[in-house]
Amino acid sequence: MERKEQAASWFREIQLSICEQLEKMDGLATFEEQQWVREAGGGGHTRILRSGRVFEKAGVNFSEVYGPLPAFLAKETGLAQGEFYATGTSIVLHPESPLLPIVHFNTRYFEMSDGKAWYGGGMDLTPIYVNKADTDNFHAGLQRICQRHHPDFYPLFKSWADEYFFIPHRSETRGVGGIFFDHIVPDVHYPQETIWGMVKDLGVSFFDLYASIAKKYLGEPYTDGQKAFQYLRRGRYAEFNLLYDRGTKFGLETGGRTESILMSLPPMATWEYQYSPEQGSPEAHTLEALYYSPG
Amino acid sequence: MERKEQAASWFREIQLSICEQLEKMDGLATFEEQQWVREAGGGGHTRILRSGRVFEKAGVNFSEVYGPLPAFLAKETGLAQGEFYATGTSIVLHPESPLLPIVHFNTRYFEMSDGKAWYGGGMDLTPIYVNKADTDNFHAGLQRICQRHHPDFYPLFKSWADEYFFIPHRSETRGVGGIFFDHIVPDVHYPQETIWGMVKDLGVSFFDLYASIAKKYLGEPYTDGQKAFQYLRRGRYAEFNLLYDRGTKFGLETGGRTESILMSLPPMATWEYQYSPEQGSPEAHTLEALYYSPG
Repeated sequence: MERKEQAASWFREIQLSICEQLEKMDGLATFEEQQWVREAGGGGHTRILRSGRVFEKAGVNFSEVYGPLPAFLAKETGLAQGEFYATGTSIVLHPESPLLPIVHFNTRYFEMSDGKAWYGGGMDLTPIYVNKADTDNFHAGLQRICQRHHPDFYPLFKSWADEYFFIPHRSETRGVGGIFFDHIVPDVHYPQETIWGMVKDLGVSFFDLYASIAKKYLGEPYTDGQKAFQYLRRGRYAEFNLLYDRGTKFGLETGGRTESILMSLPPMATWEYQYSPEQGSPEAHTLEALYYSPG
Repeated sequence: MERKEQAASWFREIQLSICEQLEKMDGLATFEEQQWVREAGGGGHTRILRSGRVFEKAGVNFSEVYGPLPAFLAKETGLAQGEFYATGTSIVLHPESPLLPIVHFNTRYFEMSDGKAWYGGGMDLTPIYVNKADTDNFHAGLQRICQRHHPDFYPLFKSWADEYFFIPHRSETRGVGGIFFDHIVPDVHYPQETIWGMVKDLGVSFFDLYASIAKKYLGEPYTDGQKAFQYLRRGRYAEFNLLYDRGTKFGLETGGRTESILMSLPPMATWEYQYSPEQGSPEAHTLEALYYSPG
């Protein structure tokens, strides 16, 4: 089986298996699926769960797109022309309760007609209320997964995430980070089986890693004030995705399906001019934890 | 008086005068003002009105920024290096009632250290419920203002707005358009007094033009369904501003004050996967009116 077929069929499988786990966790709503076709080649299956008990909105995408290299990709890859192929999954969970963190997980395989191929992906947590134990738990889980495949992976991918999931105009990280990697070309250092093994492991481990954190807060009551703070934090999430996220840019610029790409946006978000939480409040604690000023 | 001083002092004046008119119209909330300083040179005065009777959020900015040419501007202007100067006003009104349209108005003066100088600006209306009479009224008002200064202005600036206020990934215009112009360099065709005269006229006429439309709906009751549709339409507004708006990009990339630049974002917005209004409904009418597929 060709690498791309192997990747696509596995990505589709893991999409379905993650959806099953999420439905079980939600216990109320189920995923609806739309299949879409990309005019210039390929398409995808979008699965969305809405107004659940646990999830206000959960999006689990699979796509496989190919065709002539779009202009912006030609520029980025330095290739004059050719064909590209890309397949991947992309997951964003927006829980109903502000006590549960938002989570994002994406993996992708990329191949050019000249034979160049690479893997990419990322998993990051965006708590509304930052909690050190949860953050450590999440990071340790990712470290365990990465370590199973190559000692370089976790330190490399963690610092990449810190750099990537950053909102420069806010001097804020999007959340508490996780891992991010792009353009990992199989070679003698990182053989194909090593990278692909890690990508698959991430997919298999994703649900348990998220659930181990989220389940702590399931059923716990929250206040209107906490919900309002969630809306505000979701506003920042929307800022990151629309201004900086490469996946969103890639999707929109390659003529992907808008409703599928923008499933990552929160169901409801607010912007409040000069929001400033009470000193010493849990909201202030989150903002302090996310504040980062480079240089 | 130098052109830039003339522009800056007039922009600041019109900011204050428009705020006064908006406060009178609102009748409840008043503007708060923050002065900010830009590290690399200049700064601004941001005026925000919140939770009013008419306006959920109204932002009226004035800024005057200058200093070494930022990299992205050097690229855009083709200049290797130098100093830039930019001053302008920027207004975005987000009414409480979904029956009142969102409106945006911006004017700016730009000068480079090599002597090149130009004007830019725009005014466009984003009704939640598109109404032909209001659209015609708005366009006719802009046409009257432009015509007082040069016969080319309205046709040129109107088609520019149609092109600019467009959300390609939605095949939707942001609203019903208006005027947009950029990089208008004074020359024999369009003398400085002509352009500057038009810019000032826009500022003086803005409030009456908006109020003549908005006042029709003041005090009219609206439903939760109409408010929900306003939240959705505001989501599109946020998409445009974060993905495509040049002013937002300019502000963020020149190290402007984030809270001032992003005052344009709606106080609350929603994203609903695959939103589709009932056939024949007023919501469907708006989406049909805004739909545009180029080519």
